[in-house]
This record gives sequence, C-alpha cells and structure tokens, in this order.
Amino acid sequence: MHPQRWGDPAAATALPESALGLVDLAFGLQDRPAATGATPPPSALDDVLLDGLRGIVGAEHVLVDDATRALRTRGKSTPDLLRARAGDLADAPDAVVRPDGHAEVEAVLAWAHEHRVAVVPFGGGTCVTGGLAARRDGFAGLVSLDLVRMKRLLAVDDVSMTATLQPGLRGPEAEALLAAHGLTLGHFPQSFEHASIGGFAATRSSGQSSAGYGRFDAMVVGLTAATPTGPLDLGSAPANAAGPDLRQLLLGSEGAFGVITSVTVRVRRLPEVRAYEGWRWPSFDAGSDAMRTLAQAGLLPTVLRLSDESETAINLADPSSIGGADDPGCLMVTGYEGTGEQVAARRDAVTAALTRLGGTPLGTEPGDKWVQGRFHAPYLRDALLDHGVLVETLETATFWSNRGRLYADVKAALTGALGEGALVLCHVSHVYETGCSLYFTVAVRQGDDPIAQWQAAKAAASDAIIAAGATITHHHAVGTDHRPWFAEEVGEVGVRVLRAVKAELDPAGILNPGVLVP
Amino acid sequence: MHPQRWGDPAAATALPESALGLVDLAFGLQDRPAATGATPPPSALDDVLLDGLRGIVGAEHVLVDDATRALRTRGKSTPDLLRARAGDLADAPDAVVRPDGHAEVEAVLAWAHEHRVAVVPFGGGTCVTGGLAARRDGFAGLVSLDLVRMKRLLAVDDVSMTATLQPGLRGPEAEALLAAHGLTLGHFPQSFEHASIGGFAATRSSGQSSAGYGRFDAMVVGLTAATPTGPLDLGSAPANAAGPDLRQLLLGSEGAFGVITSVTVRVRRLPEVRAYEGWRWPSFDAGSDAMRTLAQAGLLPTVLRLSDESETAINLADPSSIGGADDPGCLMVTGYEGTGEQVAARRDAVTAALTRLGGTPLGTEPGDKWVQGRFHAPYLRDALLDHGVLVETLETATFWSNRGRLYADVKAALTGALGEGALVLCHVSHVYETGCSLYFTVAVRQGDDPIAQWQAAKAAASDAIIAAGATITHHHAVGTDHRPWFAEEVGEVGVRVLRAVKAELDPAGILNPGVLVP
Repeated sequence: MHPQRWGDPAAATALPESALGLVDLAFGLQDRPAATGATPPPSALDDVLLDGLRGIVGAEHVLVDDATRALRTRGKSTPDLLRARAGDLADAPDAVVRPDGHAEVEAVLAWAHEHRVAVVPFGGGTCVTGGLAARRDGFAGLVSLDLVRMKRLLAVDDVSMTATLQPGLRGPEAEALLAAHGLTLGHFPQSFEHASIGGFAATRSSGQSSAGYGRFDAMVVGLTAATPTGPLDLGSAPANAAGPDLRQLLLGSEGAFGVITSVTVRVRRLPEVRAYEGWRWPSFDAGSDAMRTLAQAGLLPTVLRLSDESETAINLADPSSIGGADDPGCLMVTGYEGTGEQVAARRDAVTAALTRLGGTPLGTEPGDKWVQGRFHAPYLRDALLDHGVLVETLETATFWSNRGRLYADVKAALTGALGEGALVLCHVSHVYETGCSLYFTVAVRQGDDPIAQWQAAKAAASDAIIAAGATITHHHAVGTDHRPWFAEEVGEVGVRVLRAVKAELDPAGILNPGVLVP
Repeated sequence: MHPQRWGDPAAATALPESALGLVDLAFGLQDRPAATGATPPPSALDDVLLDGLRGIVGAEHVLVDDATRALRTRGKSTPDLLRARAGDLADAPDAVVRPDGHAEVEAVLAWAHEHRVAVVPFGGGTCVTGGLAARRDGFAGLVSLDLVRMKRLLAVDDVSMTATLQPGLRGPEAEALLAAHGLTLGHFPQSFEHASIGGFAATRSSGQSSAGYGRFDAMVVGLTAATPTGPLDLGSAPANAAGPDLRQLLLGSEGAFGVITSVTVRVRRLPEVRAYEGWRWPSFDAGSDAMRTLAQAGLLPTVLRLSDESETAINLADPSSIGGADDPGCLMVTGYEGTGEQVAARRDAVTAALTRLGGTPLGTEPGDKWVQGRFHAPYLRDALLDHGVLVETLETATFWSNRGRLYADVKAALTGALGEGALVLCHVSHVYETGCSLYFTVAVRQGDDPIAQWQAAKAAASDAIIAAGATITHHHAVGTDHRPWFAEEVGEVGVRVLRAVKAELDPAGILNPGVLVP
C-alpha cells in the first residue's frame, strides 16, 4: 500500500482528460501535490525494550526503519490521506512487530502489558475511521502488531461448509486459498483487495454482495483471540442458547479487547454463473421501496444497490468515470451468483417482481460496468485530491420507515456544512427485512484547511444521524472518529459495559487505546 | 399453570388404555401420585421491607400468599416436577411482585439492590434448566419479579415490519395482538402456549418453525432492559458496525444482567397458506444429509424435523400417541407457510430435492398429525410420571461433520447411565448451513430416587457433549443445571467476561444469583 494513497501504486490512475474539464467546471482545478521526503519521528522504544520483542518473534520481525513505520501510520480515510500528503507522520508506530501464530501474539501482548506499550493490531490498514491511530500518551511507546505473517487457511470442513482462516489473509488471498477447494467466502467490500480477514471480523465488515452472502459477522461461526489476560476460543455450534453470544462481543471489538488470531467462517460453493444487470427507477424513493419489497419477500439477488438521483446523474453509479446525464432517474444494480439453476430461478423471480413494481430493465451493461469498477473508487479519490477536490464518504443504517428522514437530514447537514457547491451523492448497498444502509459520497473544493472543512461536515452529519435514531456506522466501524456519537448510540450503561469488558481483558489498557471504547 | 404439572390443568390427559399396556410392557406400571397439601416455607421478608415494594407497585401487586408463591417455584424440568410432586416447595420465593412498565421494574431493582434481596425475573415459568431457582444464601430474601402485567403491544411499524412487545406477553397473546395487524412472529417453541416474549429473548429461544422464521435472537432488532445501575436501550438499525453487538449480550442473559422490559422484533405477514407433510428416509444419516443439502442450498421449508429410527418407531414423531411399527425408517416433517405462490414454489423445489435425495413422500397425514400434537408432549410427560416412568429431554447442537459422533456419544452416555431398559429417542429440529441441533428424549422406569437417576444420566450426556466439542444447549439455556458445562464451553476467559459484565450491571449480585454466570 502507498503511504499517501490508496492501494497498489501501479494501479493508480490519473483523471482522464475528459473528466478534468468537468471537475474544473464543478470545483475549479487546483494543484495539490503530496509532500515528499517526510520521515516519522524517532522511535520511542530503545533496544533494551525491543530485545524482548525480538526474543519472541525473531529479530527480523521487529522493524523500526522509517519506511516500514511510515507504511503502518494511520488508515485510509481522507483526513488520514490529507495528513500523509502533508508529510505528517506524527502517528507512526515506534516499531512494527510481526508475530506468527496465536502463541506469539499472546507473548507480544504479555510483553506489551508488562512494559506498558500500546499495541495497534494491523491487518490491511484500510480503516477509514481512525482505528489505527491509537492514543500513546501514558504509554512507553506504541507498536503496530502486523498480522502479515498469519496468512494460512488452517482448516476446511466441506461437510459443514466452514473454513478456518488466519487474520492476516487479505481478501484476494483468502479467496484464492478457498477457490482451490471450490469454495468462496463471498465477502467483497470496496476495500476487498487490501483489507484482511481479521479486519473484517474486528470491524463487522459488510461486503457488496451482502444481499446474497450476508454480513461478515453473520458468516463467522467461531473465532480465537489472544488477550493480555488469556485466550478466547468461541464457537461450539452455528447458534446456541448457551448464554450471551460472546462471538458477537469480539466481532466489532476493533482490537480493543484482543487480537483475533483465527476466524471460522461459513463458506459457499464457488458460483458457476454470475450475472449483473441495471434497472432504472423514476426516483430514489421508488427504487428503495422496491428493495424493501424484495427483502421482505425473501427474494434478494446476490448484489443489490441503488444510487440516488445525484449519484446516478454524476456517474451512472460507475466510480471510474465522471460524466453527466439528463434525468437518468435512479440506477439500481442487481447481481446473481450461484449454479445456473439458482441464478435462473432467482433472476426470473426478481425480474418479475421489479417489473411489477415499476422498474425498467437496462440490460447487463450497467451491471458489468459496476463490476469492473467496484473496487476502483478509492483510486479516483486520490486523483481528485491531487486536483484540490476533497472527496470523502460516510455511511449509516436505519429501519425502512426512517429511511426518508435520515436521507434528507444527512444530506441537509452535509450541504449546510460544506456549502451549495458541494456534491452530495448517496446509495443504498445493504438491505435487510427491517431496514437498509445509506452511503454518502461528498465532493467539494478544498479550502485552506481541508481536514477542518471535512470534520465540520462529518460532525454535522453525525449529529443528524444520531438525532434521527440511526446508527453512526453500518460497516465502517467506530475507530476514534465515531467515538462520541457511538457513546450516544449505546448510552451510558452500554459504554460502562464495554469499559468493564475492556478492563477485564486488558487491565493495562494497552490494546488500541482510545479506539472504540469511549 | 399447575404447580406440579405442565400447562393448563384442563388440558391434562391421562394415558389412553391402549397405551397403558405398552407402557407396562416397557417399564412396568407404577403408581406415583403427586403429594397434595404442601405449603411453601414462611416468607423471609417482613412487612417493613415489603412496604417499600408496595410503595412502588401498589399493595395489590405484592403477593405473599402460599398459592401464588407455590406457583412461582422453579420451572418445568422433570426434576422440578419431581420436587413439586414430592411436596418440596423449599425454593418458593418470599414474595411475588408484579411491576407494570420499565420504570416500576427499575424501581423494584433499586429496592432489591438497596436491601440485598435476590430477584428472579418470571415470564412464563417454563424454564427446564433450573433458571428460576436462584441462590438465596447471602440475601435478605428472594422475590419473583412477575412480568404478568406487562402484556402490551407497544408499537407496530408495518413499513419496517417490526413490532415492539412487552416481555410478559405469552406466545398466544403476542400472536393474537399481531394477528389483528395481519402479522406474525412465527415463533412456536414447544413451550409456546405458556412461555413469554421476555423469556424467549432472555434464553435465545428457538421455535419449531425456525427453518422459516429463524431463531428468536435473530428476530430481535432492538430491546430495552432495566438493570440495578441504569437502563439499556439498544437497536439503532437492523445491523451495524458500531462496536460489539450489545443486543447479543442481553439476549441469552437469563435475567442475570437485567430485566428485559421490551423487545422489538422483526415480524412477517400472517401466512395465507400452511401445508405440512411427511417424508420417509431409510436412516437417520440419510435424512440428516438431506436436511444439510436443503440448508446449504438455501432451500429450507418453514418447518423441518427428522426423527431417528427409535423416535419414529415409538410414536411416528407424534407425541400424543404411543405405538409401535416395524422398521418405519425415519420420519421427516416438512412444513410450508406463506402466500399461496410462495408455498407452491418452495414446496415444489423442496419436493424435487428430497425426491432426488432418496426420500419417500408420505403425504400430508404425518404432517397434520405433527401439527395437532406439536405442543402436547409435556402433558404426556405428566401422565407418564403418574405411572412411574421418568421422562426428560436434553438438547445440543454442532456442526454437520460432527453430528454423527455427537449423536452416538450422547446416546451411549444416556444408555450407559440409565441401563438397557431406557428408551433414548432423538430428533433434529433446527438446521443451519453449517450444522444442526440434536434433541434427545429419554424414558426409563423410575427408581427410588428418580432425581438422582436423571442427574447421573444428564451429567454423563453433558460430559459427552462437551467432549465432542458441541454446545451444552441449543435452545434450553444455561440456568443452574448447565452451568458447569457452560463454563467449560466458553472457557476461563469467557467466564471472566460474563462476571465482569454482571459486576458492572448488578454490583450487588441480586439478579438471578447462581443462574448463568459460573
């Protein structure tokens, strides 16, 4: 991963000439190149301390060089990128430690507990909510616990259709290992190419195929975790009545309760057929109602997304191009995966339902275009940042009856904070019987202090979300950025419960201090 | 509810003459009538203390009479019934308090916290794992917090398809209120006629239609709870990434963390059509494999059950009759509920799949017979206890690849402990993509100390369950009976987490002491 940009440096793309004119018209082109040559502050950990770590994982897996530490600094939110582009590496860890296996992770945590060193578990580094910038005051230093060596497929049970994966596997690596057994996880968030299995679990990730494969937390049937006070090994059955579901306490714990060292997930057979299509709806409301009807009829495709009028007009839901269109309505993308028989049956049933509900089929082209560009938007953000356009996203979820209000309130909050020149786009990409997510993308001309500019908009939107009774995050997790609103969402007693669990598992508070727990 | 028997005294049935001979042949008829005229020990709570409670809920809702206290003594496991039949009311509460609404529940808990009085939340009283017999030593007394006055449907959202229910609603009461809106919860455990919404939530109940409607915990999208240290109000969206799912910490908490004061559940439209059928399989293995295939193909009916050879032979899966048959194979019951179109489509698809897998259709008679008797088995148990036959059930769940081993090991443990004269029957009634439940019914001639007789068998079976890596309970909860094995299942760190949550929410430990938390 590039230290100042998303993803694979080789995959970075400049804005096409055709788009530059439109961007100039909308925002006015600026030249905002990233600073070069920045180095992190000197490591606060001396060799005496680090020798303890070296004894656990081997000297070659305790890294203190500037380049490695720079690459483990913060995540990939737009504020993270803006800081990195400005040469600010103040949050760099003092060392990067790469344990291999549960026992080594446990030993690293014991070392950190003993020496009061803060630990930030690091998987793919794709966090967009400040979850990788832990508080370091009060600690002797801060290490990034890099799971890069824990990339094994530990077990496959193709009777039960489960697989046990190590946390450091990136999305494509996990899929490749499973594909050798004819299996798939079916978890494809936008961060898929870089995010890790451990990160999916620790943040309750949700992928673009969640309508068909479910959220990541719904796929997990078991997990192991290392904590400073001992191991957890959970998951004795798909579901049970043996007390509270402690798996659901570790899922979403964002490295603050323990380090997830393996995850046992439900897997499916690799689909034989994949088909993606577009549908046009006269309005966001009409399209949303159709999604609700499908979800409540138990008639979901594998992929189901709907862009609002603005998002449809800007890019016809294709993040890889910038273009306009006259009243295109709202674009829905439907995708079907499975055996030929399954795809045909579900596609027929969904097509009949959507037609009856007033949708206009647009054929496979919009679907195929979406598939091609599905992981590309973060690269586009970098190109726009180069030209002085501030681009960022935020997301929430609510029950269906509250969708209209939440959409209007968040849009008004963002526009109010950023001014009329801001573009505010929205889509629905995760649906349930009782509700759905809303995902907003914002683009606005960068002012002198773009971080403060975004933070004001983000605070206004977050206030609107909580005021509307919705969740501060459907799939981006809490990190540090959402913490104040998360505290409002779960209430004072909820916060105390989280603190009590944290104090029990991590009495010295070394695990991702300042992340998640208010 | 009868203090010594299951359910409605008017619905009690004697064994038919035809069955008596068979029972005599198998076990030898004995006459074991229940004792009469027992009274609970005097209340340990004096009027000065109780006046505090009276001030909260009104004098008419603080009951200390013997009959009311006797009716709130323990639950409905066979050991519970055997104790009640022997006239043992030692576990009777000192008073029964009936608060109305969240604020009164909170005030009762504050009173109990202040005066160190243990509190047992009481819904339907159908617990079969000792969850209503809390420890009283170290406390000034013990009150049963009866939710009988909290029976309102608080809200219906028929856009989001959710309903908010108070915890004291019994199954049929909740269904009747929802039916007035054309809705159903679809939750029909065997205890349905008497168990409560709060109990379903507090124990992670699973109903006989779980294949179609899901487990109760999967239906819950929100809940409120009163704790001695403040209120919890959880559920901002169907699902989210806002930290650990704290709903899943209260679900399954069995009154040990707080009293659930409302539950918001996903509801469905009342089915227009219901159809139930029977299928014959040559073996339990073949039938189980067929269930697995359906679950993994996403092709589940609303109801899906399979009796093993023994259960099929004994009663053709009909708990209301006792009869034999020569090699009937294994009976599967499939049920379909929904619109006519949904039922037809699903029935066709499942029928094709089961036929292909080697099942023999038996038409609707076995299905209809199962429907008629679905809530009747506990009445039959009383009739058999009258005749000196010890009848009890236990259940577990595991992943599919472990089903065969778990079945064999538990069966061997039960037969080993109870002797060759014991009948050990089993069925699968809850399936998932990755695994299933196993539900065992045992019948054996009562010895001199039938409670000790059962406890030895239960311990042997529980040891076998944990040794096989399965769960100590799929849907009966932990109570006090499962606590030692539950502790093994979640491990030392898991136990510490539960204790920490308990200490935070209930620092005086007044809530259901000795239940759930090891």
